[in-house]
This record gives sequence, C-alpha cells and structure tokens, in this order.
Amino acid sequence: MKKLGWGLVGGGEGSQIGFAHRAGSVIDGKFQFVAGAMDIDPKRAVEFGMAQGLDKDRSYSDWQEMLEKEKNRDERLHLVTVATPNVTHHTISKAFMEAGFHVLCEKPMTMTVEEAKDLVEVSKKTGQICAVNYGYTGYPMVRQMRSMVDIGDLGAIRVVVAEFAGGFMADAKDAENPRVRWRFDPTQAGMAAVTVDCGIHALHMACFVTGQKVVSVSSDFGHGIKSRQLEDDNLSAFRMRHGTIGRLWTSGLAIGRTHGLTLQVFGETGGLRWTQEQPNQLFWTPLNQPTQLLERGGNHLSKAAQRANRITLGHPEGMVMAFANLYRDLGDTITAMNEGNRPDELAGWYPSVEDGCHSIEIVQAMVQSAKRGSIWVKV
Amino acid sequence: MKKLGWGLVGGGEGSQIGFAHRAGSVIDGKFQFVAGAMDIDPKRAVEFGMAQGLDKDRSYSDWQEMLEKEKNRDERLHLVTVATPNVTHHTISKAFMEAGFHVLCEKPMTMTVEEAKDLVEVSKKTGQICAVNYGYTGYPMVRQMRSMVDIGDLGAIRVVVAEFAGGFMADAKDAENPRVRWRFDPTQAGMAAVTVDCGIHALHMACFVTGQKVVSVSSDFGHGIKSRQLEDDNLSAFRMRHGTIGRLWTSGLAIGRTHGLTLQVFGETGGLRWTQEQPNQLFWTPLNQPTQLLERGGNHLSKAAQRANRITLGHPEGMVMAFANLYRDLGDTITAMNEGNRPDELAGWYPSVEDGCHSIEIVQAMVQSAKRGSIWVKV
Amino acid sequence: MKKLGWGLVGGGEGSQIGFAHRAGSVIDGKFQFVAGAMDIDPKRAVEFGMAQGLDKDRSYSDWQEMLEKEKNRDERLHLVTVATPNVTHHTISKAFMEAGFHVLCEKPMTMTVEEAKDLVEVSKKTGQICAVNYGYTGYPMVRQMRSMVDIGDLGAIRVVVAEFAGGFMADAKDAENPRVRWRFDPTQAGMAAVTVDCGIHALHMACFVTGQKVVSVSSDFGHGIKSRQLEDDNLSAFRMRHGTIGRLWTSGLAIGRTHGLTLQVFGETGGLRWTQEQPNQLFWTPLNQPTQLLERGGNHLSKAAQRANRITLGHPEGMVMAFANLYRDLGDTITAMNEGNRPDELAGWYPSVEDGCHSIEIVQAMVQSAKRGSIWVKV
Amino acid sequence: MKKLGWGLVGGGEGSQIGFAHRAGSVIDGKFQFVAGAMDIDPKRAVEFGMAQGLDKDRSYSDWQEMLEKEKNRDERLHLVTVATPNVTHHTISKAFMEAGFHVLCEKPMTMTVEEAKDLVEVSKKTGQICAVNYGYTGYPMVRQMRSMVDIGDLGAIRVVVAEFAGGFMADAKDAENPRVRWRFDPTQAGMAAVTVDCGIHALHMACFVTGQKVVSVSSDFGHGIKSRQLEDDNLSAFRMRHGTIGRLWTSGLAIGRTHGLTLQVFGETGGLRWTQEQPNQLFWTPLNQPTQLLERGGNHLSKAAQRANRITLGHPEGMVMAFANLYRDLGDTITAMNEGNRPDELAGWYPSVEDGCHSIEIVQAMVQSAKRGSIWVKV
Repeated sequence: MKKLGWGLVGGGEGSQIGFAHRAGSVIDGKFQFVAGAMDIDPKRAVEFGMAQGLDKDRSYSDWQEMLEKEKNRDERLHLVTVATPNVTHHTISKAFMEAGFHVLCEKPMTMTVEEAKDLVEVSKKTGQICAVNYGYTGYPMVRQMRSMVDIGDLGAIRVVVAEFAGGFMADAKDAENPRVRWRFDPTQAGMAAVTVDCGIHALHMACFVTGQKVVSVSSDFGHGIKSRQLEDDNLSAFRMRHGTIGRLWTSGLAIGRTHGLTLQVFGETGGLRWTQEQPNQLFWTPLNQPTQLLERGGNHLSKAAQRANRITLGHPEGMVMAFANLYRDLGDTITAMNEGNRPDELAGWYPSVEDGCHSIEIVQAMVQSAKRGSIWVKV
Repeated sequence: MKKLGWGLVGGGEGSQIGFAHRAGSVIDGKFQFVAGAMDIDPKRAVEFGMAQGLDKDRSYSDWQEMLEKEKNRDERLHLVTVATPNVTHHTISKAFMEAGFHVLCEKPMTMTVEEAKDLVEVSKKTGQICAVNYGYTGYPMVRQMRSMVDIGDLGAIRVVVAEFAGGFMADAKDAENPRVRWRFDPTQAGMAAVTVDCGIHALHMACFVTGQKVVSVSSDFGHGIKSRQLEDDNLSAFRMRHGTIGRLWTSGLAIGRTHGLTLQVFGETGGLRWTQEQPNQLFWTPLNQPTQLLERGGNHLSKAAQRANRITLGHPEGMVMAFANLYRDLGDTITAMNEGNRPDELAGWYPSVEDGCHSIEIVQAMVQSAKRGSIWVKV
Repeated sequence: MKKLGWGLVGGGEGSQIGFAHRAGSVIDGKFQFVAGAMDIDPKRAVEFGMAQGLDKDRSYSDWQEMLEKEKNRDERLHLVTVATPNVTHHTISKAFMEAGFHVLCEKPMTMTVEEAKDLVEVSKKTGQICAVNYGYTGYPMVRQMRSMVDIGDLGAIRVVVAEFAGGFMADAKDAENPRVRWRFDPTQAGMAAVTVDCGIHALHMACFVTGQKVVSVSSDFGHGIKSRQLEDDNLSAFRMRHGTIGRLWTSGLAIGRTHGLTLQVFGETGGLRWTQEQPNQLFWTPLNQPTQLLERGGNHLSKAAQRANRITLGHPEGMVMAFANLYRDLGDTITAMNEGNRPDELAGWYPSVEDGCHSIEIVQAMVQSAKRGSIWVKV
Repeated sequence: MKKLGWGLVGGGEGSQIGFAHRAGSVIDGKFQFVAGAMDIDPKRAVEFGMAQGLDKDRSYSDWQEMLEKEKNRDERLHLVTVATPNVTHHTISKAFMEAGFHVLCEKPMTMTVEEAKDLVEVSKKTGQICAVNYGYTGYPMVRQMRSMVDIGDLGAIRVVVAEFAGGFMADAKDAENPRVRWRFDPTQAGMAAVTVDCGIHALHMACFVTGQKVVSVSSDFGHGIKSRQLEDDNLSAFRMRHGTIGRLWTSGLAIGRTHGLTLQVFGETGGLRWTQEQPNQLFWTPLNQPTQLLERGGNHLSKAAQRANRITLGHPEGMVMAFANLYRDLGDTITAMNEGNRPDELAGWYPSVEDGCHSIEIVQAMVQSAKRGSIWVKV
C-alpha cells in the first residue's frame, strides 16, 4: 500500500504540537512525512526538516517555497498541516487549498469571523478539505459520548457543561514572558485569550457531542491578572439549537487543575462525564441506575468508538492517539476521494471548516456579550 | 459536666435531616436531647418524641406548645433547632428568640430578604443566637481551606468556583411527586428552586472560605423540565467585595453527579479543591509545585481544622460529624456566654444570622438578573 | 421508649477508640451512656467519667468497682464495652459475662487461642453475648458485599484479597515511642504485631463477606525495622473452607497508604472491590460487563445494606456510623432477648465470640507458618 | 539524519503487540520500518508487510528468509523485534544475533533458564544487544520511581509490592477458547501461565525500580478454574539482594481490575505508588508529610523522567509512548555503538538480556516453591 504524502508547516524545534502531529500522522502507517517548513528562521527550518528525516529537497526554508515547489511535483502531497502562529492560519491555509492541497489547520482556525467564512468559501470552491485540529475529539470515549447521544441513550439533552480550566496562565511572573504575554496582546492574539486558547476546544466538544450548534451566549470575562488586556477567565451561559442549556467555564488561573478539559452531558434519561486527564474512561449514569465506568477498548462500545481504538482494554492510550484518529479519518476520506469512492461516514467525524468557523462565531458573540454587561448575544 | 438541653422542632419520622441533627447534637456529649415537636401531626409528634427517648412531658404536639411550656421551665433549653418547612422558618425562629432561646435554623433561613433582615434585627435585639445550618462548613477540610486563605497561603484570591449539581430533580416522572413538586411551586418554595435548595450552600461556602461577601451577580436560570415554574439549573457569575471573580453552577439535572458539592479556590500563589463526596481530602497546589493531598487528621493542618477533627487520619468522617462541629461551636459559645466568658474565636465559625441573610440577598439578586436577561444586579 | 443502659471500660481521655464507642453507641438513641471506668488511673477515671456526663455514682475508679456496683443495681447495664489494653480483654470480658452482662470486646479479643476458647465457653455457659468490635463490618457497603456473595451474584468465590497496609509503624524514630514500642514487645503484644493490630480486621472481613472460615495458611513475616521482635509486615496465602484462594497483605510500613484497608472478592461471575478510605462506594464488575459504582444509600442495595444506612445518597457516612451499626445490631438483639423474641436475622451480623476466636486461631497458625519457613499450617 | 532500519518478526494482522511495536518504533523518527515477516502463513506474511508499506523485496514469507536476505544487504537492519510465540523466542533471537543483528525480544524471553542463559552467552559473544520488551519500564513515571530510589529519596527500601492482576482469564467459557487455552498447556506455555504472562512484568519492575535482584521466593499457585494445568493466580513472598521484602500478587481471575499493574515501594523515608491505568501520575509520600501527586511533564522530575517525556503536563501519554521510550533508548545506544561513542547512561535503562534471564530464574524458583508447599527456594 502506497502511503499518503504529508507535509507540515510550523511546529518546529521545541514545539510540542509539532511533535504530536508528526507522531500522530505516522502511527497508523497511512501517511508518510515527506515535506516541511517548520521554523520561521529559514536556515533552522531546513536543518530541522533534515534532522527529522526529510529529503534535502523537500525540507524548505519557508511555506511559500514549500507551496511553490510542492505544487509542481508529480507526486503530490495529500495533506498539509498548518501549525504556525494563529495570525497566519488564514493566509497559509487558503494558499494551500487554492494550490490544490487538503489542509489540517491548527485551532483557532482564524482570527476573525470574516477570515473563517472566507476559508469556508475557499474550501467549497476548491473542493479541498480544511479540517481543524480539535484533536480531543479523536479520543475514542469522546466519540462514544457522541454515539450515545446520537442513538438516544440520554433522551433529549437538557444540559451540557464544558470546562477547560488549568493553571497555565496563573503565574504573574510569566506576565512578562513572551511565550505567555502575546496571548493577551490583541494585536497578536486577536479578540480573546483563554477563550480561543482553551475554551474553544470545550465549546467545539459540546457541539460535537450533542450534534447541535450554539445559538446565543451570555458571557462574563474575568481578568485575574489585572494588567492583562484580554480575559484569563470566562464563564458563559449558552443555548443550543434544540434547546439544550449550555455552561462553559474556561480559565488559565486554575492552579492545580492539571489540564482541566472536562465534558458533562445530561439528558432526560442519563448523564455522561469525561475528563481528558483520564481519557480512557467514561462515566455513564442511566437515570436511577448505578454509574458505569465505560472503558476504552471494552466490547460494549459504539462502532465509532471501536473504530477509534487501537490497543486492548486497560492499556492507556493518550493524546497522540487522539490526534492519530483525526489523521486516520482524513487519510480514509482522502483515499476515498482520490479513488472516487464515498468515504466511510465515520471517517467524516473530523472537525470541518464549518466547525472551525462556527467556533469563531461563538467566540465573537462571547466577546460582545462580555463587553456589554453579559447581555445575551445571538451567534 | 452538666449537658446543655437541646430541643428540635420538625425533623420527625422519615426526615433524614432530623436524624442528622439528633445524631450530630449528641456526638460530643455536650448537648442532651430533652424536648421536641417533630411532626406536623400532633399525635405523631408526641409519639415520635417519646420513641426517641424524650420524657412524656417534653414531647410536644406542636412548636407553640413547646415554646409555651419550655419558656416557663426552670431548667431551660439552651438551643432549639428549627427543621420545619421553609415557609415557617421565620415565624418559629423569631418566636423562640423572643422567648429567650438560641436557635439553629435550617437553610434557607427565610423566604424573603425582608424576613431575613427581621431575624437579624430580632437576634440583635434579644441577644439570642440565630445560627443557620450550612452544615457543610463544619467539615474539617472546609475549615482548613478558610484557614489557608486567611493566613495568605493562596495570596489574593482571584477566582472561586462553587458547584452543587446532582441528579436530584432529573426524573421527569417525579414532576408529579409531591416531595419534589413543591420545590417548583412559588407559593411553597418562594422565589427559587435549586438555587435555595442546593446552590445556597455552595454560595455560602464561597463566602465562608474567602471571607468575602458577594457584591453583584449575573445569572442564567434554566428549566430542563419545561413545565417547572422555577429553575432547576442556574449558572451565575459574581463578584466579591475584594475583587474575587465568582462562578456558580447549581443543578438538579446532573444525573450521575451523586452529590456534586464542590468548591475550588484559586489565588495568586496556589489553588484548593474540595468535594463533599470525599470530604476527608483536600487538594492543595502551590504555584509551580506538585499537588498535595491534605488529609483530615493530618498533623500539618490549621488549628481550626484540628479543632473540628475527631478520629484519626485515614478513618473517614462523614456528614453527621460536620453537623456535630456546628453543635460543638454553638455549645462552646453558649457555655461561654452563660458563664460570662468570651467564646473561643474558632467557635464563632458557625454560620450566623447575617450569613443567612446575605445568602437570601444574593438569591434575590440572582432571580432579578435571570429575569432581566442576565444583566448584572447589585446584591 | 426506654433506652438501654451502656457502660464503657477503658477508652478514656485521649483515646480515639473511646470516643468512637461513645459516639457510635448513642447515635441512634437506643443506648444511653450511664456507667464507665475509663482510665487506668482511678482519680482520672472518675473525673473523666463525670466530664462525659456520667452521674457521680456511676463514674467508677476501676472496672472491678464498676462490676461490683453495677451487678447489684436494679436497673442494670445492658451492654458493657471493653476497650482496655489487649492483655486484659479476656479477664474483664469474662468477669462481666459471668456477672450477667453482655459484652462488646475490642479486637484482638484475647492474647491466645486458649483464652479465646474460654470466652466462647463462658458465653455459651452464661448465655451472655460477647461480640467483638470488628467495626468495619458495620459499613453498609461491606454488608452489601456479603449480601451479593450470599445470593450468588458472584457465583462460587475463587479468590479473596484482603489488605490492611498503612504507614503507622514506619517511622524508625517511633521505635522508642512507648505508644508504638509496646506493639513489638511480646510480653505486652503477644504473638504478633501488625497482624493482630491491622491484619486481623482484614482477615475477619474476608470471612465475613465470603461466609467461609480459613482452613490453612502459609505466611511470611517481615521486619522492616530490624530491631523489632515482632513482624511489621505480613504476606499470607490461605485457603478457605469451600476452596476459596486467600491473599492477605498487612503492613505498618506502607508510607502513603493513608489507611489501607481494602477487600476484593472475585467469583466466577463477577468481582467486588471496596476500600475504607472511600467507604460509601463499592465497585462491582459483572463478568464481561462494565464496572458499576454502587453507592451507599442507593435504591438497588440489599436489605442488609439498607438496614445499615442512615443518610441519603451522596452524603458521606464515616467510621463512627459503622460502629453505630454494630451497636444497633446489639441493641436490637438484646431488646429481642429481653422481650423473649427471636432477634431479626440481620441484627445477628455483628461479629460473634466465635468470630473473635477464629481470628486468633488464624493468627496463631500464621505465626507458626512464618516461624517454620512459610510451610502450610492448618488452622 | 539517516533513520535506522528496523524489522519485525511476528506481530501481524490482529496482533495488538505488533501494532504497538510498529507505532512505538517510528514515533520519534529515529527508526524506519523497512523489513518484516509478520505472519506464520507465508502468503499472509508477505501481503501484510506490503499493506504496512514495506517494499515488496523486504516483505518476507518467514523469518528464515528475512534473516538470509537481510544479512546480505549492504544497508543492514539496525534492530529486529521478535514478537512471535514464546516457544520460538530463543531460536529466532539467537539466529538474528549470530547473524549480526541487535534484537528486541518480547517477554518472556525464553521458555527455560537454560535457553535464557544461552541468549546471555550469545549476546556476550556476538556483541549484539538482546533487549527484552518489558515495555512498562518505559513509562516516564516508572523511571521517576527508579531515579528517586537511586538518589535516596526513600532511604533504604524496606518493602516492594508488585501486582499485575486482572480478569483476563476469568471467563470459564474461555477455557476452551484457543487464544486462552494454550496459556495453560505446559507444552505451549512452559512452566507457568499467569506468572509469565503478567507477573513477570511486575517482577521485573520491582527489580528495575529498586535496582536489586531477587534472591529467594516462597510461592502459592492457585487454580481458580480447576481444570487448568497451570496457575491462574500466584501469591509470592520474596527477598531481594539488599534485604528488601518483596510481595507479588498476579492473577487472571480479578474481574474488574481492568489492567491491574501496580507498583508500590516503601522505604525508610517515603513511599511511592504507581498504577498503569493512570500512568501519568505518581503518588509520592515523604514520611510524615502529605502525599504529593507527581505529574509526568512536571518540572520537578528527574533527568531520566524528563528524557522519557514527550508532551506537556496534563496531556496524557499512553502505553505506546512507553514502548517508544525503549526504542529511543535502543536507537541512541545503537547509534553510539555504530559511531564508536559511549552511549548515554540513561539510554542504558532498557531491559537487558540479563534482566530477561533473571526473570526466568525467578519464575523457575516460584514454580519449584509452589510445588513444594511454598517453602523458600533460592533464585
């Protein structure tokens, strides 16, 4: 079986997300890492690519060079991952799509709603995929949640509670650290800080699992470190299309919440609870029954969860495997497209350009609500 | 040592809170249960009292009879606990204070802010205590949290997150069950449902632990079961006197959250997390350090936590012991008052009539905010 | 309802077990604490009794005086708890039974098998109860385990794993501390140290839950602190009457295992796991099914577990409530005996004199096995 | 950077361990998967290799062909992983070493002590590595344990407690399932069942973390399913070189213990607890101090733990990452050997041929002890 060629823009030396993409893409043997422009410094970019095993002529000094050369090769790249600073996501993703490449873009997909809508258009026009790396949706037990909601195990969903709260932004001494400071500088970070860095994942998961979009929000932005121009804590109420009540708390101030990504879904006939720190377990409580611990790899899980599973029950899988599931979905979809087949429906669970756009719309509404005294704003 | 006489109004057969008071009051041997009017049915009231070991002449048919007879006895009751339906709290507590008895009133202390302020006045005028049974504040590890905030272990408190969310009101079939339905009937329940039943505990704990009052709120009330007149889910943002950002989520729809009372406090230099389902442990994370598991009974705890402790490290204490700590505080305070001494400062940590009143003021502000589109309302 | 008179020998000031008995006995209002001789020092004994609210004439200077005076009273004690040093258990329990009092004796019931058998005889001859305070068997979820085994939910029991391992004896500096040192001095502690202090509870629980006796053992005793004459760590294999394979680990060296009492039972069709540090939950896994979290107070529990329950689901109960269940059992049994009725079968679940004796027999066999190179010894 | 060539024998379609090796070896980009003979059926072997992206001429029909062809290539394989049935480990590993290839052999390394000693000799003679895949030692927090023991954080180690107990062999209906049955057939499984399948990992970890060898054992083998010729449950006491007391429990009957690999180490000045189901956390309790939760990725960990870490704090890593650490160690060691350099000392933490041999010696002693009534047997 010929492997699909894969390339990476950004995510160079010292970048953890870069490692996660390189590892996640190759785990199943579907993609081969063949091209990259991974550093803002042209020389380091070339050197780092070669250190990662790229051929010299496909280790590029910048994304423009990569785009130019790759689009003229016979053996084309099948997927390009964009893991550069947020402000460049729109330009780079657009350019690669327009040159005929499928794209997996890091979150947040864009800085503004306008840019996001533009990518939706470009994807439609070019027929190229622009997936968004909400990587946590790749966890088998998150997919199990979606399956259970889908088939009605919980009845109508009354409440969804999404949290992403850790202590990542809690050290006041870091306020001057450039790796943290840029997040609170509107010229680099855009309209929001912890909301686009963390909360956006939890929000997407609420949509992913319930199958609903957010229709309105009421938000309170907090500034635990007062000098910051953007929020480091956000509590938002929201409503979803089919009436589900939504609650979001995202914070960078929550010292001791190691990672703090948690999703709870409560319906008429049961409740689900999942947390990323223990991603192989899902707590499921049918109404008036004991709570059950559903284990990844167990034989009672949905087809979607089993498809996303790799190793046996009891052996933990981690975040890179979740990323690998997005790559598997994309690999299967791209292969089917290339062969003129209809992709497997479950392969279509990767986060789409529309999902990426919807998230930015929600964030914009939250920013407006927070500025206007927490009044309700339509998405 | 002569024990202090204690009496109970309400909390009769089948009432779990009645058991918790009877057990909690006697555990330390400071109080003796000597008088009661525990049932709304006069005959059952007398019989149940005698079945609990009361003397025939102090097992009363109703609280009015109890008040009349007890106020004329030489050997007076030292404390009366009021565990009757909420609508009667104000009348009964006031009557006992005016007759010269100290009172421990169940929560919510009253139905309205006006009634609450009246009890504050009556307590001041009569010199009688009117404590409120926020019983969870009696847990040693909750007191440890307060001590740690007090001495500055966390620096300035940036965020407090209070939750009380369980599945108690999630069964739609219960909507017709009288034991549940009254909570959503404004004529019996007053202005709010899950907020006064559950959320009020979490709110008081946020105040208790941070030592701050709530100054403003923005609330979203949800109705997961649509036929209900009052809320079964409430997400509120709030601000506290010294600038702390507050978050509250309380819900009766959260199937699988067995009890769901949780408090998290995040300051400049550390974070704390406590949950009632595992009340003997407190998670403490100093900034940039590993999380520590502080254990009730450990030798590193504050004086307040050690004072509230009974059995050795590793042997769990439960909710009744937390109640017992309020009784111990009240016993010590009343003894000191009777002897003309200044009570131990730590004995003064029981929730006061002002605390009970402040809670009602917050709830009223939340109701107004929720009605007016989640705008911010001053408390 | 007239309360039953209860007396306490030992368990005075500073004794935590004394507090647990005084609190546990009165929680349900069945017993009244009316007599005691709680300190080895006669003056302190009298004073401490009065400080606990005993009448002056029933606060005794020693157990002999208590026995003499109480046996001549019209209104007799219905139960005497013996919480004195282990070496005195046999003498005091025997004396009280022979004077016509029911006894609840702390564990280990005696120092030797001979003494234990003697108490069995005395109990039989006098018709007086001699219960043993394996207090942890009072936990509702431990009783649930027994019920589930009884009705066959697990099929035949293949393996039982009992652990009681903490860091209580791990501090070498404590080796000279008189409160610790006596446990390793054979003249005071008898034949074993951590095995009779801790392991004996876990062993009894294995018998209690499986309904089987131990028939043979192979033991390895360790001395983590080498100067000790008796073991501070014990690993034992054992076999039970109906073929169940047994495993015991008990240790005082396990720093960080806060309490460390755990019981696991594995049968043909399911497994159970319970730990004292979280006593309100029981993990139940039916073969090839997800694990369920059974919660104390839940509506799916056995009659025995519900009988032992006091407060609602989600509100934790602790160790004193477990003790209270033994007192409730004894109270119900004694009341039935006094009234000439047959006691409720479930009230008979308190640990009996035969149980106390069986434990000592097992310990003796373990000591012999350990001395003889871990060969198998019959019990 | 030129990648190192890697080949796989066994571990074909449907084999989970095969996937874990293929994924673990490539995650860091050090190895490239270039040759394989992964199925016992020659045709399937070739096809599966090609489906995994191998070149046609390096996808072999059996290991003999692979050996012949690969040893004559200019560009040689740098490492061959042997993941075939246990009975073939010795023959295949020996053949590859003798042909000049380094080997990573699955556990148990061999069926007998004689075979194991032979591999030690062959490795010495040929200068080829024969590592053993005790993959769990690759977890960063397991390496953290070893580092902490090494530098003396725990003082002298008093007790090590190793467990590997799950419900993998608990279903009696599986007794006839060929995938389970062979484990209990001495002609295929050798001298022991659950001990070599599971317990051997826990035993090696006890050695790995304490840096000590086992010197004597006393074992009790149980047969929960009576028809089995080999044990499905094993409780063993052991002693280590420097006096540490050892405890092992391994079982296939423990329904509900999802995976059940746990290691606890108790020294004079602290205790450690780790469990594979939550591999990113390590519980560390310094004597008389609160327990700390050490998190993988935290900035207080040892150099060895940091070297084994990939993604940031809070994002879980799973079992495949642990495997990847053994591959990283081997890659670094082989590269250094190839370049004539001294390998990084920490790269030498992979389990060696001597470790593989020592494990088989321990198992043999356990079998003898169990047969002879649990008497102590020297290793």
